[in-house]
Amino acid sequence: MTDMITLDLLPTLALGATILGTGGGGDPYVGRLMAEQAIRECGPVPLVAPEDVPDDAVLLLCGMMGAPAVIVEKLPSGTEIAQAITAVAQMTGRAVTHLVSLEAGGINSVVPVAAAARTGLPLVDADGMGRAFPELQMLLPTLEGISATPMALVDDKGNRLVIDTVDNRSAEAFARGATVQMGASASLAFYPLRGDQVARALVPRTMSLAIAIGRALETARCAHDDPIDAVARAMQGRALFTGKVVDVLRRTTAGFNRGVATIEGMGSDIGTVMTLDFQNEFLIARRGDRPVVTTPDLICLLDALSGEPVTAETLRYGRRVAVIGAPCFERWRSPEGLAIVGPGYFGYGFPYRPFSPDDESV
Amino acid sequence: MTDMITLDLLPTLALGATILGTGGGGDPYVGRLMAEQAIRECGPVPLVAPEDVPDDAVLLLCGMMGAPAVIVEKLPSGTEIAQAITAVAQMTGRAVTHLVSLEAGGINSVVPVAAAARTGLPLVDADGMGRAFPELQMLLPTLEGISATPMALVDDKGNRLVIDTVDNRSAEAFARGATVQMGASASLAFYPLRGDQVARALVPRTMSLAIAIGRALETARCAHDDPIDAVARAMQGRALFTGKVVDVLRRTTAGFNRGVATIEGMGSDIGTVMTLDFQNEFLIARRGDRPVVTTPDLICLLDALSGEPVTAETLRYGRRVAVIGAPCFERWRSPEGLAIVGPGYFGYGFPYRPFSPDDESV
Repeated sequence: MTDMITLDLLPTLALGATILGTGGGGDPYVGRLMAEQAIRECGPVPLVAPEDVPDDAVLLLCGMMGAPAVIVEKLPSGTEIAQAITAVAQMTGRAVTHLVSLEAGGINSVVPVAAAARTGLPLVDADGMGRAFPELQMLLPTLEGISATPMALVDDKGNRLVIDTVDNRSAEAFARGATVQMGASASLAFYPLRGDQVARALVPRTMSLAIAIGRALETARCAHDDPIDAVARAMQGRALFTGKVVDVLRRTTAGFNRGVATIEGMGSDIGTVMTLDFQNEFLIARRGDRPVVTTPDLICLLDALSGEPVTAETLRYGRRVAVIGAPCFERWRSPEGLAIVGPGYFGYGFPYRPFSPDDESV
Repeated sequence: MTDMITLDLLPTLALGATILGTGGGGDPYVGRLMAEQAIRECGPVPLVAPEDVPDDAVLLLCGMMGAPAVIVEKLPSGTEIAQAITAVAQMTGRAVTHLVSLEAGGINSVVPVAAAARTGLPLVDADGMGRAFPELQMLLPTLEGISATPMALVDDKGNRLVIDTVDNRSAEAFARGATVQMGASASLAFYPLRGDQVARALVPRTMSLAIAIGRALETARCAHDDPIDAVARAMQGRALFTGKVVDVLRRTTAGFNRGVATIEGMGSDIGTVMTLDFQNEFLIARRGDRPVVTTPDLICLLDALSGEPVTAETLRYGRRVAVIGAPCFERWRSPEGLAIVGPGYFGYGFPYRPFSPDDESV
């Protein structure tokens, strides 16, 4: 396994994380620049296997919150997360020993690398989601009854909020409002964890997984292999559909990028249509009217030729794309997991349909 | 001077404070109940003259924020402000020695009495405004360059926010958003002050003033004197107009109660019209089109017969009312004061017109 995140690993990590972002999670380009700068100045970041975290360790999850389009334009200085970490440590009275990415997908896979480099803390090879989700209570610790707070939010101007709430959904609501006030971009540290909670409260080895996915894509490209199949194999999923984007319905409501993309089949999929619903991330893939992949399972969109990940924000008419489906982390499939990230939570009337790469009916 | 706030003083204090609320500040009824309960349980509250506060004292301003109509329906338990005070003390690392009302008008004149009784801290005979204003940066400490933060907000469910901002207007913006999330009612502690800042950062003797105004009204009623003139004299103002409310235009926008009331003259004012613009508080009084009293000077509305204060929220067609004008605390009339509470701040195109009770042209 990788035990050090070095400069030359960052592009591979960011590439894989964009795919795990399932269309959301933000473009890691800016996060990668932040991490590169931080590693150049402070040295590479130790990546600690979850089973090697001591029981008495004090962990904090961290990352950024807001509109990806804004984060790209309004670069964080790189010290904001360190300030947020300090604020939480001050509230809990315990020195932080390890950092963890809040999500494995998108910008939040690399922003914590920058935070780890600048604070000198090791990063745990794990995250809170195993992918990207749009809201801050959608993390495994919520299922374990672990509070997201004290949570600290810091903006680029130096404004700082420390939030303590009675439940994690309230924490999301307060943080969402504050982030809007912060100009749609905030750095945050939250979910204080003890080392003995790591085994149940984190999705293990997802930083390594992102690197493996990125590497599979890079290798397939060099070898002129099919990049789509290479990525699908690396994430234990399956290529489901190839086609041309013929329509994108998009609206920005309540701070989210919501919409539906319609893809007309090409090649073996000719004559059929797949639609993708998204709220930042892709939530539902349908063949015709039939849901075939449902949240929390992963729906990933790649450029049909290059295998380059396509985010919901950059979706546009005419783009040739391939859709990959992959199973989510097992724990999300429990009734309590589905209650916070299943189709019902997002307002859909149909149940979760567990996706398996071997299911030929999909 | 009054040196103890006892149970039997509370109705008088609340009555005078409603008048100083200049139409806003919330109905002190609920605050009075909270203070009565707290004094019954914990004893009366020492009222300390501002000049008797030691230079090394640590003061905190406190009160409630939100929609008065909600505060009345969703009673605070009375311990929220104490929690907010503890949170700020934790952030600053200094034990609080004195409390101060954030504003002398409305509910925030009595809520801090409850907080003082419950925490065992004395209350300073002063406040941050000398009246009521609608926003949290509209306090004298802002003019002194004193930060409103660390500020703590606590709701009835137990949610808690600690806010640290680069300027006081940002503190208002974050607190306003959080208060909406808290269901339009939050208890707060903020503006940590040192004793040596009291002389310049607080409006002195405004608790005593509220009591004096309340007493003047009560005495006039008992003696069958004119209550309007008695109140006007007590606040060094003048009765300007008497008439009947013939129209109230009201809209609730961005968390504020905004509108215009039109009053048709009676008695010596017959044939003329006065209009009052309000944003929670009365901001501008016009005779016809001519502004005669302008914010930050005080515009107070009383029932024409009983002298009972009339708030902007309870204004309605047919009510017989008297309008009193009174000069604001001198410091608000400086250019930097007017920049944050003058007509221009509220979007009016005309300048502040200092009101004097001797000016016969009004």
